[in-house]
Amino acid sequence: MNQDIQAMQFALREFARAREWGQFHSPKNLAAALSVESAELLEHFQWLTEEQSRNLPDDKHNQVAGELADVLIYVLQLADKLAIDPMEAAWRKLEANEKKYPVELARGRNTKYTEL
Amino acid sequence: MNQDIQAMQFALREFARAREWGQFHSPKNLAAALSVESAELLEHFQWLTEEQSRNLPDDKHNQVAGELADVLIYVLQLADKLAIDPMEAAWRKLEANEKKYPVELARGRNTKYTEL
Amino acid sequence: MNQDIQAMQFALREFARAREWGQFHSPKNLAAALSVESAELLEHFQWLTEEQSRNLPDDKHNQVAGELADVLIYVLQLADKLAIDPMEAAWRKLEANEKKYPVELARGRNTKYTEL
Amino acid sequence: MNQDIQAMQFALREFARAREWGQFHSPKNLAAALSVESAELLEHFQWLTEEQSRNLPDDKHNQVAGELADVLIYVLQLADKLAIDPMEAAWRKLEANEKKYPVELARGRNTKYTEL
Repeated sequence: MNQDIQAMQFALREFARAREWGQFHSPKNLAAALSVESAELLEHFQWLTEEQSRNLPDDKHNQVAGELADVLIYVLQLADKLAIDPMEAAWRKLEANEKKYPVELARGRNTKYTEL
Repeated sequence: MNQDIQAMQFALREFARAREWGQFHSPKNLAAALSVESAELLEHFQWLTEEQSRNLPDDKHNQVAGELADVLIYVLQLADKLAIDPMEAAWRKLEANEKKYPVELARGRNTKYTEL
Repeated sequence: MNQDIQAMQFALREFARAREWGQFHSPKNLAAALSVESAELLEHFQWLTEEQSRNLPDDKHNQVAGELADVLIYVLQLADKLAIDPMEAAWRKLEANEKKYPVELARGRNTKYTEL
Repeated sequence: MNQDIQAMQFALREFARAREWGQFHSPKNLAAALSVESAELLEHFQWLTEEQSRNLPDDKHNQVAGELADVLIYVLQLADKLAIDPMEAAWRKLEANEKKYPVELARGRNTKYTEL
């Protein structure tokens, strides 16, 4: 398990413990909060063109970094609660995606694997 | 920057490059995909009680790990596109949250900082 | 087509036209905005128990009504753009759900139809 | 209150009652389900250009109509549970938006009212 991620998860546990927030942090609630934070991130992009989204002004870039941090924080908290190693899960998923999206079939196509 | 995360971001870049998916991966689109994956994670919990969400059966636990991996993958891809160090951003956010949620005010309360 | 809904869609079209917002209101962007507003609605409930969510205090109830209105507004705008009759689509879906969730199989179960 | 909407809400109540789903349909859970369905709608658009989203092929259009129906169904169920008249709430919101987004300030701009 990655030590930086463990350190962050440790800090998040202490942060929640000091505030007695464990009672609110069921996996169900953390999954809802994660979804809400992801939407707050999306809000910054919803009326931008794709081109504009590739060239954010500095203040917007900073806000987006803050929202991305919120999302990552809930990913790590939820992983911690459920005893999931998030990086290991991501590597497993990436391997599975290599099979679901073979290069020859997927090249240049924005199609879901079920429709390839 | 964390090396495991850099390795994963490298792999994700190569995965997308081999499939010529860069054209689809604008920050705007990645933010939408991140939001969609977060909702797929939430779907597993939507009809469970909080108690049930703390005690997932094995097959459900595996599915949830897969969805969490999808979310993390999009977090890391989006961070990569925007040149944001996601762990550094998370630490900065955690520090900011210590000020927004002082222990004395926040203890045992599920209230947004704006209403504390 | 329901006349109240048509009246609302007419008003929304005029509202957007007066502000020259048609350029932003692609179906893709409206779908993102709908998802963002739904998450803002969910945010009000994320740390509540189910029991608390059934007994909202008045000010919270008013805020929730406002968020629900935002969601409905985007549903109607998106339906208008795509020439979908939303009530007709909902009736069709309800009929389909009667077949997907037969009373004998679905009674008292929170299981997706694919797993019934 | 609009009679078509009341008829739909009546049908949805009966549908849930016959399956004994009232136990799952807390406002909290319905808000989560609404958010999940909105994301399923967004999923259809996430890799499309805005231009493509304006010109959906027929099969995609039908799928989108089905997802939009799911979103509307949860809006109406949640409104019913919370005794909110959804069309009235939408009209109130539209009036409020007229003040938040004056034509002179908002014309041609995709900026949140807090930044106008």
